[in-house]
Amino acid sequence: MVEPFDVVDLIRAKRDHGTLSSAQIGWMVDAYTRGYIADEQMSAMAMAIFLNGMERTEIHDLTLAMVASGERLDFAGLTKKTTDKHSTGGVGDKITLPLAPLVASFGVAVPQLSGRGLGHTGGTLDKLESIPGWRASLTPEEFFSQLESVGAVICAAGAKLAPADGKLYALRDITGTVESIPLIASSIMSKKIAEGTAALVLDVKFGSGAFLQDPAIGRQLAETMVRLGTDAGVATVALLTNMNVPLGLAIGNANEVRESVEVLAGGGPADVVELTLALAREMLALAGHPDADVEKALANGSAMDTWRRMIVAQGGDPDAALPTPQHTQVVTAPRSGVLVRQDARPFGIGAWRLGAGRARQEDPVQHAAGIDLHAKPGDTVTAGQPLFTMSTDDDARFERALEAIEGSYEIGDAGTAIQTGGALIQGRITA
Amino acid sequence: MVEPFDVVDLIRAKRDHGTLSSAQIGWMVDAYTRGYIADEQMSAMAMAIFLNGMERTEIHDLTLAMVASGERLDFAGLTKKTTDKHSTGGVGDKITLPLAPLVASFGVAVPQLSGRGLGHTGGTLDKLESIPGWRASLTPEEFFSQLESVGAVICAAGAKLAPADGKLYALRDITGTVESIPLIASSIMSKKIAEGTAALVLDVKFGSGAFLQDPAIGRQLAETMVRLGTDAGVATVALLTNMNVPLGLAIGNANEVRESVEVLAGGGPADVVELTLALAREMLALAGHPDADVEKALANGSAMDTWRRMIVAQGGDPDAALPTPQHTQVVTAPRSGVLVRQDARPFGIGAWRLGAGRARQEDPVQHAAGIDLHAKPGDTVTAGQPLFTMSTDDDARFERALEAIEGSYEIGDAGTAIQTGGALIQGRITA
Repeated sequence: MVEPFDVVDLIRAKRDHGTLSSAQIGWMVDAYTRGYIADEQMSAMAMAIFLNGMERTEIHDLTLAMVASGERLDFAGLTKKTTDKHSTGGVGDKITLPLAPLVASFGVAVPQLSGRGLGHTGGTLDKLESIPGWRASLTPEEFFSQLESVGAVICAAGAKLAPADGKLYALRDITGTVESIPLIASSIMSKKIAEGTAALVLDVKFGSGAFLQDPAIGRQLAETMVRLGTDAGVATVALLTNMNVPLGLAIGNANEVRESVEVLAGGGPADVVELTLALAREMLALAGHPDADVEKALANGSAMDTWRRMIVAQGGDPDAALPTPQHTQVVTAPRSGVLVRQDARPFGIGAWRLGAGRARQEDPVQHAAGIDLHAKPGDTVTAGQPLFTMSTDDDARFERALEAIEGSYEIGDAGTAIQTGGALIQGRITA
Repeated sequence: MVEPFDVVDLIRAKRDHGTLSSAQIGWMVDAYTRGYIADEQMSAMAMAIFLNGMERTEIHDLTLAMVASGERLDFAGLTKKTTDKHSTGGVGDKITLPLAPLVASFGVAVPQLSGRGLGHTGGTLDKLESIPGWRASLTPEEFFSQLESVGAVICAAGAKLAPADGKLYALRDITGTVESIPLIASSIMSKKIAEGTAALVLDVKFGSGAFLQDPAIGRQLAETMVRLGTDAGVATVALLTNMNVPLGLAIGNANEVRESVEVLAGGGPADVVELTLALAREMLALAGHPDADVEKALANGSAMDTWRRMIVAQGGDPDAALPTPQHTQVVTAPRSGVLVRQDARPFGIGAWRLGAGRARQEDPVQHAAGIDLHAKPGDTVTAGQPLFTMSTDDDARFERALEAIEGSYEIGDAGTAIQTGGALIQGRITA
């Protein structure tokens, strides 16, 4: 075929602060998916986009071109309304686990296509795979049938949704071009638009445990994504949430499932409950249930019931014992006082090094590895009291995990300011 | 081996306007040469360098790291002093052909390692290959022996000199990262330093027919390269020259050889003679002959004698007929007046499209293809008089060549300002 554009011209245009047309972006994404544009050319383009940015129209065109690079799911045949959630990722972020069944318990469909963890943030599928028998891969028929019967599905996204994004994301990871608003926004939204959900709630995290440190940049990303979703016909709302402190007490895989089940049983750490409820209310409001009593659904067991049905539908045994670690090591408080700081990222890296995460896409994870916190910022502690427990199947890992965590928490005198960066939910962005 | 750095960290540092250390740059170039750093990573780095620039120390380190990636020639065994010239490339730039024998006729050695043309600027080796029998490849022994006996050698640079530069240059060509001062300067100077010459004169061109349009940027590039050469122990001087108008009357291969022989015979176009003499004086001054009478060497045949010996030494027949084209087409003046504009780049592209240049490295060139100008800016022309002749072996090429050239020349009334961008030689940069 005769190519309508020369990729070097397009790279030079973006390099020189130009704006790419719809036709140029559409061709570029298609040519990259076909392999006509080489990875080295796309990575120069990604760096030029990273440094020179993209106009609103370009981000829009890039997102839709990535959607068009693959299949687009269609839920028109479902009797239920679809509503979904996406988090930009954080430490201890297991919210999808209690959230999907909670929302589905109101008779709506939650088609949660998830990924695996890479780096210091965990992956939803890795967590659920610690449940004996549970499987992440469903056929399209199983997926639709479970959405209709149970309502909640958490499963692996197929490679057929937005394949251009899959290719570009892998490239960005090795070329230092991840933290760019146009590239993050188009990556997330192309997958979600291709997934076909009618409504979407975004949990955009900022702070030490998130991809973006700065709340102002987080807000910009949230605004960009809400606009992209709305323009594509997906009812989209975003919450801007604080990821400076780990979410909940569990960081890992099996321990995060355990904590999620506590929430579904009406207990669990206050921050996990708060965020689960807030996101559930948003998802349900977008699906036509603005007055849903989500606290009641946790209290009366209906969310738990949906969880159990969801696990069973995917081959899992909700009553089976979860894996336990071969080695644990407890770290105690060196002095008495108040825990004033507990920095999310080092704890995320620590859990990763203990075996909860993977360095390469093909590595396995240890389902029982991770960290259990015994105190949160603001808690009073006494010298010698356990602060956190590290778990792993390989005790050589404790040392490097501790290296990461060292200096990331602090005990101060009573009255010292608590360094958490403020409230958990710091903003709500709508179209 | 355990790598001391992570390339993604280095890309991110440059992306975020950081300065890379000597150790980081040295490792990066070595790891890229070894294939440990992937092309897509290096192209992201090249774009980050393009957009964020490099400190003086970084350019220095990059240049020396590329020198260290391969062999470095050593002329200590020669009885003659070495002096060389490099041009950043232009349209009709055949200066190396008369210059090398002219300078060598004073008893110095000119080890001119040259390349082939790519794009709209021609290649010295392509031009010389229009001489029947002449060959560009010499063994190291032939190269040294000819330097000692004839003094002038124009031959192909081996792949062993600065291989990192060869790899990076090929990458820059397809990723829109060519026109960057740190990358151009380190590319040129790494090859020249590896080549081992004691003295170097740079012909840094600006204007429509050059890589760099802007004389101020040309001056910056010249200053950067003079500093790099001087720091590496190579006596280096640069001339800043105007490339808005084609050099001489011939653009192509065989016709440029013909014009070079005219200069060596004491004739030739005034601009080609002027630049040849100026560069020869600089090269000879750096080699200890500040008072060499270069005009006399052209007039008395000693430069021509060296030319003939140089061609014969490389298998060529200086008396053989040069190839002639199968088709020619003459373009005449549409009106009478003064030729006020003749834009170098479109004529370079025209000659390229006629077959004088190549689109891909592996393409052959047509030695008889090109353009012969019959008038230069400032000349009075009458309607119907030939302005230029196009030559090719494939008459389907005339149309696209004319498309390139159309609108690139202008005939005005007597007294209209001549648009050439001023004098040929516009600056001289020394350490």
